Amino acid sequence: SPGVTLTVNEKIEIAKQLSRLGVDVLEAGFPVASQGDFDAVERIATEVGPLMIGREAHGTPMTIAGLARAVPADIKRCFDAISKAPKRRIHTFLATSDIHLQHKLKITREECVARAVAAVSFAKTLVDDVEFSPEDAGRSDQDFLCQVLSAVIEAGATTLNIPDTVGYNMPEEYGAMIKYLIANTKGSNTVIWSAHCHNDLGLATANTLSGIMNGIRQVEVTINGIGERAGNTAMEEIVMAVHTHPDFFPVYHTINTPQFFRISQLVSSLSGMVVQPNKAIVGANAFLHESGIHQDGVLKNKLTYEIISPETVGANTINLVLGKHSGRAAFRSRLQELGFGELTDEEFQIAFNSFKALADSKKRVTEQDLIALLSDQVSQAAGTDKAIFVIKSLQVVSGTSFATATVQLQNSQTGETTVDAAIGKSGPIEAVFSAIQRLVGKKIRLLKFDITAVGEGVDALGQVSVKIAENQGDETPEGEEEGPRSTSKQATYHGHGADSDIIQAASRAYLNAINRLVANENERLHGERQVDV
Amino acid sequence: SPGVTLTVNEKIEIAKQLSRLGVDVLEAGFPVASQGDFDAVERIATEVGPLMIGREAHGTPMTIAGLARAVPADIKRCFDAISKAPKRRIHTFLATSDIHLQHKLKITREECVARAVAAVSFAKTLVDDVEFSPEDAGRSDQDFLCQVLSAVIEAGATTLNIPDTVGYNMPEEYGAMIKYLIANTKGSNTVIWSAHCHNDLGLATANTLSGIMNGIRQVEVTINGIGERAGNTAMEEIVMAVHTHPDFFPVYHTINTPQFFRISQLVSSLSGMVVQPNKAIVGANAFLHESGIHQDGVLKNKLTYEIISPETVGANTINLVLGKHSGRAAFRSRLQELGFGELTDEEFQIAFNSFKALADSKKRVTEQDLIALLSDQVSQAAGTDKAIFVIKSLQVVSGTSFATATVQLQNSQTGETTVDAAIGKSGPIEAVFSAIQRLVGKKIRLLKFDITAVGEGVDALGQVSVKIAENQGDETPEGEEEGPRSTSKQATYHGHGADSDIIQAASRAYLNAINRLVANENERLHGERQVDV
Repeated sequence: SPGVTLTVNEKIEIAKQLSRLGVDVLEAGFPVASQGDFDAVERIATEVGPLMIGREAHGTPMTIAGLARAVPADIKRCFDAISKAPKRRIHTFLATSDIHLQHKLKITREECVARAVAAVSFAKTLVDDVEFSPEDAGRSDQDFLCQVLSAVIEAGATTLNIPDTVGYNMPEEYGAMIKYLIANTKGSNTVIWSAHCHNDLGLATANTLSGIMNGIRQVEVTINGIGERAGNTAMEEIVMAVHTHPDFFPVYHTINTPQFFRISQLVSSLSGMVVQPNKAIVGANAFLHESGIHQDGVLKNKLTYEIISPETVGANTINLVLGKHSGRAAFRSRLQELGFGELTDEEFQIAFNSFKALADSKKRVTEQDLIALLSDQVSQAAGTDKAIFVIKSLQVVSGTSFATATVQLQNSQTGETTVDAAIGKSGPIEAVFSAIQRLVGKKIRLLKFDITAVGEGVDALGQVSVKIAENQGDETPEGEEEGPRSTSKQATYHGHGADSDIIQAASRAYLNAINRLVANENERLHGERQVDV
Repeated sequence: SPGVTLTVNEKIEIAKQLSRLGVDVLEAGFPVASQGDFDAVERIATEVGPLMIGREAHGTPMTIAGLARAVPADIKRCFDAISKAPKRRIHTFLATSDIHLQHKLKITREECVARAVAAVSFAKTLVDDVEFSPEDAGRSDQDFLCQVLSAVIEAGATTLNIPDTVGYNMPEEYGAMIKYLIANTKGSNTVIWSAHCHNDLGLATANTLSGIMNGIRQVEVTINGIGERAGNTAMEEIVMAVHTHPDFFPVYHTINTPQFFRISQLVSSLSGMVVQPNKAIVGANAFLHESGIHQDGVLKNKLTYEIISPETVGANTINLVLGKHSGRAAFRSRLQELGFGELTDEEFQIAFNSFKALADSKKRVTEQDLIALLSDQVSQAAGTDKAIFVIKSLQVVSGTSFATATVQLQNSQTGETTVDAAIGKSGPIEAVFSAIQRLVGKKIRLLKFDITAVGEGVDALGQVSVKIAENQGDETPEGEEEGPRSTSKQATYHGHGADSDIIQAASRAYLNAINRLVANENERLHGERQVDV
């Protein structure tokens, strides 16, 4: 998803939660894209692949899949990344629409078939489980598609995934295409057919469901529907549509639905991608009734306006409360319910200390706060051995004139402490960032800056997420365009911070990102390659 | 939508923008719900109803509709509110599903038919244009529905709206229901059939489109899909589905689509309901390509991954930039493009001053910033004659220990100036709020607190929205639950603030809300009734 840069630790945490949710196949990344992507897929395959967490009902661990273009180098690299998983899959793809063949790949239809067959055949020499996707299937000639798909089945593909890459199809069109492909592809009954839809017109869920009605038996989905552009199909919507319509759909699900709210919060918190209040199933308002008529109806009989009870998707637990008098046992049991049960003693202690500090400044600590705290801890942990700079003290003076910040940083490697001040024309956060820049002796470009704080009180936990890059040349001249569409190859670094004091949250996020930048520079000095952290 | 409390001025601004967008019928509110709702509908009918802004192509102003339960008092009150509009409509509704009849209304099917007919007949004596909705149609017995609908057509209904009130229908089901109702209702070809869908399973758009394929010719939609629970059908998704599939749908549209991004931002900004980045059409990422493969394709030929050009929905203009050297003319022309062309000289001057102040602290002022500034101005203006307290100076000291705020307020009625300080355990914003509470001498309960700041730099405009109520009894005891589900009848007040300094934004939002509270108290002392501001 644009703007989302998760660390390896964050990806592992999400992978574990997906296992707990009951997901069958996890596509963990695109190993050839960068060393960072490779590392993430490899560590998920090694560390999460063998786990059975929450999967007793399934009897097997998750299959870990990696993505690869239809070229040998990609496929080999993908295999290297997933090879340690007990259940592993290579997912290779090649565009089949004329517009993609002519303009992007510049190959003929014959070359397209040959390349697809070669890719699947090669992948099949490495693993048994091979998925093939004809990219932009929605705009491909259907008879040519059947030709490609028949050929890859013969070459050994076990799953055929049909993407509506640009999110253009209407549900009737997508369903009809699936029906036609299954009817006209040789060997179609020997493979699993899969749907992969995009939400550009708001129809990803409807298209995927229409696919299911026409023979789809694997759905490619994401938590909260995040993904390229307007995103992909939201898992929670598909599962709950099937859940609420057992007689309508010819399929069932084995998803642990009460986990939905938590994993939605976790993904939102780690990715910095907010979930709008009116998001189906997992939005903050999804189960709130505002109008008097609706409230009255719900009080008389819930069924008048509720088709899903909040408990079914875990939305009821989100306001459960811990207070400053809650002890370790209560805290530990709550963490376990949240799926953070496998913390080491040290990690648990850090989490407990953060909780105590929060409970001190805040009357009621909600489950939402705990998820934010733990997400913050997971993110910070990604840089634990890298936390070169630590804030020792921070003082801000701001008001109707300029803001001033005084920051004291400690370099944890040398023990040296430095202090400096700076002003901010547009408020205290700018002042803090400027002071930190002075102390670390770097010119930093801020590429993205998100604050969110949503709650019932002024002590709502503020979450800040930043993306930075080092300013290598001169500073950008005033007024020059430097929008998000500029596609420089410069390394970027992501940082998170969560705190009930918004300035503290911002300074932690900023320093978190800087620590990653500095760690990366040090590693490069020692010859290691790492561009995507 | 839960948590959204717009002022009358904000509603009027949105109504004007909807006219500009080319909307045919605007359902402006539910006049009987409160004096505030009545006032909003009446002022929209009077001030926006006769306007032709942006409607030259249509040849008529918007129809202004009001909602009314199927009882004479509601219908009369609705008529009083809309009566000044040149084109006006009464929309009355009554539940028809057995579950609603038995549990909510406690009436028989016969009584239901009689009540619906009586309501439509009475409305018809007041206006020509009468819409009727059988609430929870999606779960109603279809033959009974046809009986009710045939009867209300005979009584004079001109539009029949079929709601899937609980968002339960699958697209095939909703489409089939519409087809059946049209085929089996007497006089069905003499009325317009309308769709009203909810998004509880993420299918509002698909259901509405399925309705269109089966005879629907009015769609009830909202900007950004906001509404009860998971919201209603998003207008921008329906229009762009029709726009991109002219040969698929048997309908066309006359919507001014390049206005979509702006009105989406305006509604989000005024309502405090964030639009998630992966929202179709109007999300911040809707036109961003992140993966290298997609970027490469788009550079070679946009059509590889783009089905809608960003210009078509106005997404390209959002990053257009004004700088500190931009003059009045450039600023005025930009405001006109944004649809804020009808400011008075005084309003223009206030806007220009805010812009200059922002440009002073910020290198580049984007269109998004201008929308936030103008939205802020619209909100503040709602309380112009009510702005009893004004911040004269504000000083904050915060850091790793407690935060301290010193605030100087002026009472604009008496000219008196007071100053006081307070601390905040959870940061500077709490400190500011506490100091303001001391100065105004009230115990305020903060019911909602939202911060959003999304941009490319630390000078991104922060937007804060708060909801408060006066604490009339003792303070809530520590640990007591006071969640959003508590349904007290206490008056609540909403405030907005936008500033690149997040603390300034928060203090303005808080004082904005307090000014409304105080103004409301003063009005009550003088005998006026106003509970929903």
